[in-house]
Amino acid sequence: MIVGQSGGPTAVINSSLYGVVAEGIRQEAVGHVYGMINGIEGFLEGRYLDFEEALLGEDIEKLKTTPGAYLGSCRYKLPESLEDPVYPLLFQKFEELDIGYFFYIGGNDSMDTVSKLSRYAEKTGSSIRVIGEPKTIDNDLVLTDHTPGFGSAARYVASTVREIVTDANVYETRSVTIVEIMGRHAGWLTAAAALARKSVGDNPLLIYLPETAFDQEAFLEKVKTCFEKNPNVIVCVSEGIHDQEGTFICEYDNSVGTDSFGHKMLAGCGKYLENLVRQRLGVKARSVELNVSQRCSASMMSATDQQEAVGAGKFGVRAALKGETGKMVSYIRTSSVPYRMTYGLEDVNQICNQEKTVPLSWITEDGSDVSEEFLLYALPLIQGTVEIPLGADGLPAFVSRK
Amino acid sequence: MIVGQSGGPTAVINSSLYGVVAEGIRQEAVGHVYGMINGIEGFLEGRYLDFEEALLGEDIEKLKTTPGAYLGSCRYKLPESLEDPVYPLLFQKFEELDIGYFFYIGGNDSMDTVSKLSRYAEKTGSSIRVIGEPKTIDNDLVLTDHTPGFGSAARYVASTVREIVTDANVYETRSVTIVEIMGRHAGWLTAAAALARKSVGDNPLLIYLPETAFDQEAFLEKVKTCFEKNPNVIVCVSEGIHDQEGTFICEYDNSVGTDSFGHKMLAGCGKYLENLVRQRLGVKARSVELNVSQRCSASMMSATDQQEAVGAGKFGVRAALKGETGKMVSYIRTSSVPYRMTYGLEDVNQICNQEKTVPLSWITEDGSDVSEEFLLYALPLIQGTVEIPLGADGLPAFVSRK
Repeated sequence: MIVGQSGGPTAVINSSLYGVVAEGIRQEAVGHVYGMINGIEGFLEGRYLDFEEALLGEDIEKLKTTPGAYLGSCRYKLPESLEDPVYPLLFQKFEELDIGYFFYIGGNDSMDTVSKLSRYAEKTGSSIRVIGEPKTIDNDLVLTDHTPGFGSAARYVASTVREIVTDANVYETRSVTIVEIMGRHAGWLTAAAALARKSVGDNPLLIYLPETAFDQEAFLEKVKTCFEKNPNVIVCVSEGIHDQEGTFICEYDNSVGTDSFGHKMLAGCGKYLENLVRQRLGVKARSVELNVSQRCSASMMSATDQQEAVGAGKFGVRAALKGETGKMVSYIRTSSVPYRMTYGLEDVNQICNQEKTVPLSWITEDGSDVSEEFLLYALPLIQGTVEIPLGADGLPAFVSRK
Repeated sequence: MIVGQSGGPTAVINSSLYGVVAEGIRQEAVGHVYGMINGIEGFLEGRYLDFEEALLGEDIEKLKTTPGAYLGSCRYKLPESLEDPVYPLLFQKFEELDIGYFFYIGGNDSMDTVSKLSRYAEKTGSSIRVIGEPKTIDNDLVLTDHTPGFGSAARYVASTVREIVTDANVYETRSVTIVEIMGRHAGWLTAAAALARKSVGDNPLLIYLPETAFDQEAFLEKVKTCFEKNPNVIVCVSEGIHDQEGTFICEYDNSVGTDSFGHKMLAGCGKYLENLVRQRLGVKARSVELNVSQRCSASMMSATDQQEAVGAGKFGVRAALKGETGKMVSYIRTSSVPYRMTYGLEDVNQICNQEKTVPLSWITEDGSDVSEEFLLYALPLIQGTVEIPLGADGLPAFVSRK
């Protein structure tokens, strides 16, 4: 069997990898567990490793607490036409390694790869089984309750916003802090900022997702109203918020902002709103872009997320060995209180290139907050602390390829 | 006795507060332990609390794991002239509460307050003892080996940069990641990024502090050389890097960058260098501003830093009770390997309004890295993990004023 990772990293993409690899090694029907280096793209260049040589003994356990993508990633899109010569080339390389099972860990784009490879295998009568393992902090895959990576990213967002609130509260003078959170089209991760509240009415007082249109004037009015409750207003926004016409808010400064070379300087929507608030409301304003730590911080890994990712990896291997192909492992929630879930399989062709956004019924009417339903949905996913092993230098010890 | 907090928060400013309060409660000579709300400024408005009423039972222990400033902060500078009417007003308020001991937790500016109050007390024959408790992530106070708050911020920077390196390593295409770290005039915190390296020659490949002049052309040449070793180059810069003439690098985009209202849009030096690299070297570039999490994240609190802050708080109270005044508690390193330190007292007049920068001998000749001496200095200060208590929602539970 062979496994690859694709797309942006998450805190637990290596936990999924651990699940796949550990189960592969355990299964007698599997002779070797190979890993593609830098996904399909690297594999086409002949780059792969054998896990039983690459990660010895206990080092394989460290995958579960290592963020990033151990195997490296790629953003390679297979051609639409299954007649393209890349397909026979790829399958010839599979044959050379005697591959019977292929696993790909990734988001919507990666599921497109799974879809194409499984369809090519079917078309050519190849017996190779192709299974997708979900992964994305964006939580935007359809036909699954949630995705591995979202819980840890949501825990990072919620705890970091809670800390930013303590930071903002130290001064009495009116201030607005804009926190910009990842999510171009789906607001799941920004919505997780609502979990930072210690009680109803607590900061963050305003939360804006890309699922609804953002009105700058209405926003400024809202901030003014918030000052009646609290001098320190925390506003959380998705990077992808846009106006009624679909223009991203971060594009508003585009037309005039240029650097000394005459090139456009693109700042995020957080920076734009910071300036807007300062100039229009005359109060202290700052912005914080949570940036890549949302997807690569191990410090706030959710134990629930980690365990589910490992479980999904193992489940996928067992499904492939049973003969399943062209499927993605899904999460099925069987109960919210107490939280219970199980794994399932969904047709990958129904998943790739689709996007699941936050239901409009979970967003308040004025678009400035999320509802109780979202909290009930998200709270179980961020539970549990993971102890990250430390190295001799006292810092988190991550495992990496030699 | 009364205690106040001033200036920007840190991960352990409340640990210092805990030390002061716990020791004050323990001492029989102290009847009440009061806290100023929002420092001197709030106290002048009559705002204070009694710790034995405000924080009951075990809640006081939670101060040690709560970032931010429990008492709130201020940026209030006392007048230079001790003839100003604010001084008798303040001392009259002290008298009303029967205050014999005053403790102020803060950085250089706060030590200025300690200096003025102790001089006024001496001048007027008041018996009030005035002691400063150090605090700053910038580590820029003179006459102390290091400052409470620096170890935790350094641990945050080192571990976050290590995570950003794992994030950057997933792709093979050449990329430059600029990490902007706090420190306007002193580069201690940026230097801590060197601790992120797992081995010599590892990322971050370039580290620039504000102690030396930053040359943009030399920097671009350095990045080109780095590509020979690694396709993913991580560069850590202090927010305060500047050119030979003293112009901040972040000011370079000033002249042309304006938003749609015609106002200047100030981006940080990270954003500026990101654009510079992209345009001049034609490679993928991104920037990450670590921002306020450096000073308010509890997730990477250093146990060493926390314990020393508690110890400094207690030491200050005992010193005041012995009759000391006009002093700041200092850290004296007695050994680096194994690390040993003890507390001391220094004349606060020699500390306030001074700034300790990184010794030039600890910076490499070309200004793009720090030396082994810095690593030996900083490594002991980031040791030890602190378990942060979780609330019913599974997120860090911080204590706050009612």
